[in-house]
Amino acid sequence: MGERHWFIPDGYIPPDSTGDLVSHESVCVLNTSSEDALLSFTVYFEDREPIENVLVVVPGRRSRHIRTSTLAKEGEAIPPGVPYSLAVSSDVPVVVQYSRQDATQAANALLSVMAYPIKPHQNGR
Amino acid sequence: MGERHWFIPDGYIPPDSTGDLVSHESVCVLNTSSEDALLSFTVYFEDREPIENVLVVVPGRRSRHIRTSTLAKEGEAIPPGVPYSLAVSSDVPVVVQYSRQDATQAANALLSVMAYPIKPHQNGR
Amino acid sequence: MGERHWFIPDGYIPPDSTGDLVSHESVCVLNTSSEDALLSFTVYFEDREPIENVLVVVPGRRSRHIRTSTLAKEGEAIPPGVPYSLAVSSDVPVVVQYSRQDATQAANALLSVMAYPIKPHQNGR
Amino acid sequence: MGERHWFIPDGYIPPDSTGDLVSHESVCVLNTSSEDALLSFTVYFEDREPIENVLVVVPGRRSRHIRTSTLAKEGEAIPPGVPYSLAVSSDVPVVVQYSRQDATQAANALLSVMAYPIKPHQNGR
Repeated sequence: MGERHWFIPDGYIPPDSTGDLVSHESVCVLNTSSEDALLSFTVYFEDREPIENVLVVVPGRRSRHIRTSTLAKEGEAIPPGVPYSLAVSSDVPVVVQYSRQDATQAANALLSVMAYPIKPHQNGR
Repeated sequence: MGERHWFIPDGYIPPDSTGDLVSHESVCVLNTSSEDALLSFTVYFEDREPIENVLVVVPGRRSRHIRTSTLAKEGEAIPPGVPYSLAVSSDVPVVVQYSRQDATQAANALLSVMAYPIKPHQNGR
Repeated sequence: MGERHWFIPDGYIPPDSTGDLVSHESVCVLNTSSEDALLSFTVYFEDREPIENVLVVVPGRRSRHIRTSTLAKEGEAIPPGVPYSLAVSSDVPVVVQYSRQDATQAANALLSVMAYPIKPHQNGR
Repeated sequence: MGERHWFIPDGYIPPDSTGDLVSHESVCVLNTSSEDALLSFTVYFEDREPIENVLVVVPGRRSRHIRTSTLAKEGEAIPPGVPYSLAVSSDVPVVVQYSRQDATQAANALLSVMAYPIKPHQNGR
């Protein structure tokens, strides 16, 4: 259940951390189907070409919280402190939520959004 | 008014609290109908089989803010400090929002998302 | 532009404040039409009958950020420290976002969600 | 991929900052198409006429995180400390998320929402 295409415009890995918590982002994926979901991430930047086709598997009937710092391809990863966006495609329908924990200052801050889905047969896009 | 199927990919009960506030998550449900809503929760994990069919009632014309730490079946509950996801089904249409209060550090942090709805007759899913 | 029916399941006015900021919630409404929008709020509780038909006007081509503590009818208002939900109806289409500022502890915390819309002609609901 | 019309009811530039972080808001835009997207912003206020047609370009296959403090037209910008709303139109479909970092007090606070999209052919609106 869910959708095959999801978008997250506000990506940002906070470069600093304070205290015991580590600043990070997670792309949280729920795959309620009985099959593995093969996810393909595209990372869009402000000033250079995208990193395309970063692959991640989410097993059937499982949750997976993917740290964006682990998304890498041929040694190229998302640098901290840089604004970016993410597109996620999946071969089976899934549900995708994005959360950030920012521990830059002495206190913890959180944000979270459901990613934006594009639905099949929706105006042919 | 609302939907019968809702999904929350980013579930996490913070294991620690500081100060007077207690870290917790709430699944907040609005049932505007005049009938009771019978909700069935499924809890999905990263590395083991889901906990299925945890039942909760939300009376008609009432709000209910359900702490995720109270969702349990046959003595099995959601452990703190573990990434998970939730699926919620209801026999009458409801609206579902998910919020987390994280008081791990000396200051309070909050996140909230509307859960993701799957609508009836939507591509047969 | 927008919708006529919006829902906010997670309502809560934090009873305490620390520092110079005051804990509060806002229902933020954008009316892009040229006519006034007449909004009707229903407040749903966990353990008693709803407060119905609290009226607020948002002028045409204007933004209005409505503090939930100002929603009252016949002397009955939303008490602080109590979980509740909101339904908002408008006679012209509007867009509704809900935000909370929680200054209970020494630091500020924020959450925000777009309210959940029910669209006309959507499965007859 | 995405939509051409997006709405953000809860706009507010926090007037104060504490520590090394600066309070600000960002409208984060993902343009997955190969063409430039020309965005037109309208800023709605509570007590005066909107600022209309503020133009911003987001290149093809790029992310752009736009600080709301940079949105200006004929010397007129969004004042800090004032509640407002935003409407964003684009000539090619994009995805829009809104985030605020509030460093008013000694600790950082974050909120984020996906903007609300109006879809083409949706009830003629």
